[in-house]
Amino acid sequence: MALASWPVSVELPVQWGEMDDFGHVNNAVFLRWFESARIAYFQHLWPERPSGDEVGPILARMEIDYRLPLQYPDTVRCEATVTSLGNSSFHMAYRLFSEAHGGAVAAEGDSVVVMIDYRSGKSVPLTQELRAAIEAVEADS
Amino acid sequence: MALASWPVSVELPVQWGEMDDFGHVNNAVFLRWFESARIAYFQHLWPERPSGDEVGPILARMEIDYRLPLQYPDTVRCEATVTSLGNSSFHMAYRLFSEAHGGAVAAEGDSVVVMIDYRSGKSVPLTQELRAAIEAVEADS
Amino acid sequence: MALASWPVSVELPVQWGEMDDFGHVNNAVFLRWFESARIAYFQHLWPERPSGDEVGPILARMEIDYRLPLQYPDTVRCEATVTSLGNSSFHMAYRLFSEAHGGAVAAEGDSVVVMIDYRSGKSVPLTQELRAAIEAVEADS
Amino acid sequence: MALASWPVSVELPVQWGEMDDFGHVNNAVFLRWFESARIAYFQHLWPERPSGDEVGPILARMEIDYRLPLQYPDTVRCEATVTSLGNSSFHMAYRLFSEAHGGAVAAEGDSVVVMIDYRSGKSVPLTQELRAAIEAVEADS
Repeated sequence: MALASWPVSVELPVQWGEMDDFGHVNNAVFLRWFESARIAYFQHLWPERPSGDEVGPILARMEIDYRLPLQYPDTVRCEATVTSLGNSSFHMAYRLFSEAHGGAVAAEGDSVVVMIDYRSGKSVPLTQELRAAIEAVEADS
Repeated sequence: MALASWPVSVELPVQWGEMDDFGHVNNAVFLRWFESARIAYFQHLWPERPSGDEVGPILARMEIDYRLPLQYPDTVRCEATVTSLGNSSFHMAYRLFSEAHGGAVAAEGDSVVVMIDYRSGKSVPLTQELRAAIEAVEADS
Repeated sequence: MALASWPVSVELPVQWGEMDDFGHVNNAVFLRWFESARIAYFQHLWPERPSGDEVGPILARMEIDYRLPLQYPDTVRCEATVTSLGNSSFHMAYRLFSEAHGGAVAAEGDSVVVMIDYRSGKSVPLTQELRAAIEAVEADS
Repeated sequence: MALASWPVSVELPVQWGEMDDFGHVNNAVFLRWFESARIAYFQHLWPERPSGDEVGPILARMEIDYRLPLQYPDTVRCEATVTSLGNSSFHMAYRLFSEAHGGAVAAEGDSVVVMIDYRSGKSVPLTQELRAAIEAVEADS
């Protein structure tokens, strides 16, 4: 089992309107980008839209380190990987690279994703099927 | 002089988080996309960042027709063109194409951009230099 | 029947992060505010969440005139009213007032809302029930 | 010296358009709310807009725990407090309460704010003046 292989990435143009009054991309935009990488990863795990399912993932925690201020114009690449599997949750990490900064890391993040029953709001154990799917995605990198 | 030649375009991935509770890209996101095309156009007119200039463009009016509901995943291409020049303002039009809809038009827009003196807030006439720059961009298409 | 009586309003604080690199509230944020007034109006027409319904409203067109640049800190009040009823659509107008500008109008808008069958994507006629509900909201102002 | 006294709070209506396709307020919106509380705090420290200053605060790190899924309609209150002072940085914590959930905590956060020289990008020590200003804000609660 090999996790943390960074198998999924998305490339996103920095939009001018994502900068705030300080002239840098606003801190909340980075979470949108992380989400885009996370959803791209989720599409491998749940090819059908998960919104109507009875059990699905929710974001329970996010940590983000801002390494570089970003500006328009730029293109960022955001990578995601699952770094560990728990009983009913897993850790997903992110790293964001800036083309305008020569590919340097502009932000790094770590999140906890919990599998819950949407009706009861209770967490549920990761199924063997989901564990295998995550490992298959990580092995594909 | 040939305007309305659609010389500038930007390509943007639809992000999952841009959809709202109706399951479609939220209406306000389309204005962000139009803005990205407008700013790409402005970079031809004002290669330096215009934010510190004493005279610059402001958006005074926008009209938008929503033609198709959009969903993640998709990639949109937004084109911009100047369609007419006034005394102290010009019209810029937009059209947005959806890859997931086979390149169909998903939205169209028209805006009024006014040149103002940022200190006084008053409109100022388009300079000959600016008129020529717009015509050069339109001729380049 | 009296329309255009501006019966619904919402009050919203300007958030610092809604300003862009020009130091003013970004143009797309105004559509978020108009939407908040529109949804507050819709709650009178459809007290239950309409997202699962088979027939419901979609935004087909928006026009907005930006009258004043806005900055943090400020509080805006956005009003909405239905101005005319068509066969399968209606017009909803918006006006936005800025407390920091002494209550002056900062933006005005007009939109076309179409009733559609979400499954077929086709427009459907306004029911008598909906017409009466709109008139009741407008009469309540 | 008493820190962590939660002296600053802002109240914000949940907007319908802040919900995503899962029918909950999108995770990135919480950072916008935390920012609004942080900026309200900063206004006590720097009554003038800090954007043009040569030394100012930047957000270097954020941790957020999502406790409750939120939906429109709701009103949230976000509190901010400085919890510790370092050499050139300080920790600011956040907690977010949901009116629709009877005032329950919907999210908690912790951030690192670094004082930097905007021209050089280098961190600079907290001045005695800034330390005193933070303590005065915390003592005022």
